[in-house]
Parts: sequence; C-alpha cells; structure tokens
Amino acid sequence: MQIVLIGAGGTLGSAVHTTLIGRGHEVVTVGRSSGDLRLDIADPARIAEMYERIGSVDAVVSAAGDTPWKPITEMTPQDYEAAFRGKVLSQVELVRQGLRRVAERGSFTLITGVLAREPVPTGSAASMANGAVEAFVRAAAIEIAPQRVNAVSPTVFTESLDDYGAFFPGMEPVDLANVTQAYVRSVEGAQTGQVYCL
Amino acid sequence: MQIVLIGAGGTLGSAVHTTLIGRGHEVVTVGRSSGDLRLDIADPARIAEMYERIGSVDAVVSAAGDTPWKPITEMTPQDYEAAFRGKVLSQVELVRQGLRRVAERGSFTLITGVLAREPVPTGSAASMANGAVEAFVRAAAIEIAPQRVNAVSPTVFTESLDDYGAFFPGMEPVDLANVTQAYVRSVEGAQTGQVYCL
Ligand SMILES: NC(=O)c1ccc[n+]([C@@H]2O[C@H](COP(=O)([O-])OP(=O)(O)OC[C@H]3O[C@@H](n4cnc5c(N)ncnc54)[C@H](OP(=O)(O)O)[C@@H]3O)[C@@H](O)[C@H]2O)c1
Ligand SMILES: NC(=O)c1ccc[n+]([C@@H]2O[C@H](COP(=O)([O-])OP(=O)(O)OC[C@H]3O[C@@H](n4cnc5c(N)ncnc54)[C@H](OP(=O)(O)O)[C@@H]3O)[C@@H](O)[C@H]2O)c1
Repeated sequence: MQIVLIGAGGTLGSAVHTTLIGRGHEVVTVGRSSGDLRLDIADPARIAEMYERIGSVDAVVSAAGDTPWKPITEMTPQDYEAAFRGKVLSQVELVRQGLRRVAERGSFTLITGVLAREPVPTGSAASMANGAVEAFVRAAAIEIAPQRVNAVSPTVFTESLDDYGAFFPGMEPVDLANVTQAYVRSVEGAQTGQVYCL
Repeated sequence: MQIVLIGAGGTLGSAVHTTLIGRGHEVVTVGRSSGDLRLDIADPARIAEMYERIGSVDAVVSAAGDTPWKPITEMTPQDYEAAFRGKVLSQVELVRQGLRRVAERGSFTLITGVLAREPVPTGSAASMANGAVEAFVRAAAIEIAPQRVNAVSPTVFTESLDDYGAFFPGMEPVDLANVTQAYVRSVEGAQTGQVYCL
C-alpha cells in the first residue's frame, strides 16, 4: 500500500516505519524537522499542502502529537489550546482533509494514549487531548465508511521508560513491537471506530 | 451551599436550578442572554471577571456548552475550534480558574453527554468535545483533591425528544429529573473524578 506516516522520526514513528516497510508498504514520511515532507500538522493549511503534494494514498498513519505537561495550577488557556491544536485538531484534520485522498476502503490510524482513561499528575492537557481523539474516532467512523479510522492508545512504551517511567508507577509498559502491530491491524485489517488499548 | 450555575436558563440548567433551590442552596445564575450574570464562558477572560464578581463559592455547576452539528464533510477547522472553545476550554477554565475560589472540599460539576461513547451522524465535534471533558475530569480530579470534579454524561433528555429524538433512534431517553440527581450527587456527595453516565 501507499502510506503517509506523520511523526516518522519519533520513538513510535520510527518503529512504525520499520514495521510498515518490512511488510512491503511504500511509506512517505512526514515531520516538522525530518522526513520526506517537512511540515507542522498543527496548522490545517499545512495539511492541505501535504495532501496536495502527496495525492492519493491507501492509508494515513499518525505517530505525532505534542501536549504541554504541567500541574493544572500552572496551565494556561494557551496550554490547553496548544494541546488541542497539537494533538486533536491536527489529527482531526488529517482525517477530514484526507477523505478526498484516501482509497475507498483505505484507513486513518491516529495516536492517543492511556491518559485518556488513566490519569497521571501534570497530564491534564494530554488526557483531554487523548479523550477528544478517541471519541472523534468513534464518531468519524460511522460517517466515513467504507473508509476507516481507528486509534492506537498505548500505555508508556518500554523503550520510553527512561524518559517517562516515573510518571507511570505500577503501570505495565508496552513494547513498541506490540504497538506497531496495532497499526498493522488498523492499516491491513477491516476494522473501524476501534480504540486499540495496549 | 453557595453555588454558581452556568447555563441556568437552558433546558437542563433550569431543571438543575429548580432542584438546587429546592434543596436549600443559594444559586447565582450565569448565561450569555439571561441570568444574574451575563457572560460567555467560551472566553477565558470573561470567566476571570465572573469569579472576580462572585468571590468564593462551594460549588461550580455547568449546564452550558454549544457545539456545531454537521456532517464531517461539511465541518471546517473553525467548527472543531468552536466546539473546543464552547464546550471544552470553557469548562476546563471554569475548573482551573475556580481553584482559588471554590471551598476546600467544594466541587465542580461539568456537562458532557452520551456522544462521548455512542456516536451519531453529524455529531463528530460534539463527541470530540465530550470525550475531551470526560478525560479532563478524570485527570483534574487527582490533582485538585480535596477539591472535587465530576462530569454528568446523559443521553438525550425525554424533554428534548421533540428537538433531538430523531438523532437517537432506539436509545432510551433520560428524564431531566434523573439528570438533576447526578448534579446533586456531585455537589452534595464526596465523589470525584466520576463520569455519571445516564
Ligand atoms: N512515548 C510513550 O511512552 C508514549 C506512550 C503512549 C502514547 N504516546 C504518544 O505517541 C505519540 C508519539 O510519541 P513519541 O514518544 O514517539 O514522541 P516523539 O519521539 O517526540 O516523536 C514524535 C514525532 O512526531 C513529530 N511531530 C510532532 N508534532 C508534530 C507536528 N505538529 N507536525 C508534524 N510532525 C510532528 C516529531 O517530529 P518533529 O519534532 O521533527 O516534528 C517526531 O518525529 C505522541 O502522541 C505520544 O503522546 C507516547
Ligand atoms: N438536550 C439534550 O438532550 C442533551 C443531552 C445530553 C447532553 N446535553 C448537554 O447539556 C448541555 C445543555 O443542553 P440543553 O439542551 O439544556 O441546552 P440549552 O437549552 O441550549 O441550554 C444551554 C444554556 O447554556 C447557556 N450557554 C451556552 N453556551 C454558553 C456560553 N458559552 N456561556 C454562557 N452560557 C452559555 C445558554 O444560554 P445563552 O444562550 O443565553 O448563553 C443556555 O441557557 C449541553 O452541553 C448539551 O450538549 C443535552
């Protein structure tokens, strides 16, 4: 398949990239500072340009998304807006603008995370963003069929424990090898409206 | 208790108002076009002014929130932003800015809706907003204790069936009398981080 992968240079994205290539797919990589195309998906106009450049694809796969991490008492309205633009609107627009570009039974695979259901201190903007994307995925799925959309919602990656492990005491990490399989399930399978909790 | 109720003039808000008054609480009503205070909670600066005017309260109760309803193919980035400001950021800011105003074990009660878990066509912005608020509530709860925050997440109201019933085929409606009890549970009880699904 022809696949566009946003966030391909990241921890998750590079694992997804390797997996998709290994399964024989052709992958166009996108990121702000690395990739075949360099752009910021937090700006809907850049997404329009991206699809203009890429044309038709079979699948759009997202492994990107930034949100501020701060105690709620230190958050500002701008922080919640940044989380909305960086992780929610960005991924919503990948779907909405991609409807004219993705194959009839093609798919969108978005990234969320365990904070949608299990909170941790300083994660209120990330929780908000993940909850928004997961509910959007369920809603978009029933409108866009037979095109498909799913979310991958992992706990902390085993490979990220050094960076983020302290935020997730007692929570079993997940290996990136398992997370990438959820992307394969979404891209190559036939399911839609699913949130793969890993 | 001293309670501020946003959206007091609406279908839900007027039922919540009657219930809270009936239980002996003192209620300051807020809305854009009716109420003791007239302001738009979609603008964080207006929320700051609201708390400046009101001072300390025991509970902040929200029955407000607007989101665009359109097929996803007709949505624009501005529509999703409007849903974010109108239902998510507005309620997030009621909590964040209210932390200095609400009593030590006081509460915030926010409004979401069944679309967080059960989608309907044209509801993708509303689903997104509800999912965002519910995940935020779980996250905020663990940071703000002993202050408390819960969400009320009802299906279509029996009293709104004439307006919205066609969107919810086969889904059992809920009477406002039951929805208002979830507000009582949140305000007078001791729970936090709960999403009351009705
Ligand atoms: N790490 C974990 O344990 C974990 C667990 C659960 C969920 N997640 C989620 O998984 C996703 C990826 O996490 P990660 O740890 O792999 O992060 P990461 O290493 O920082 O990678 C993120 C990638 O996305 C790109 N990116 C970010 N924002 C972008 C934007 N607006 N436009 C274009 N590209 C953008 C970044 O590249 P540029 O900076 O060059 O743009 C980077 O390549 C995030 O949404 C995160 O919340 C992570
Ligand atoms: N109706 C249902 O069946 C149903 C079911 C589940 C969930 N809900 C949710 O319950 C909430 C209330 O629904 P409803 O049917 O009662 O709506 P409604 O009758 O339109 O009432 C909404 C009230 O909130 C006020 N309001 C709205 N946006 C505001 C803002 N930005 N700032 C200040 N006040 C604002 C409105 O007054 P002004 O216009 O004067 O500001 C109005 O009094 C909504 O969030 C809705 O999604 C409704």
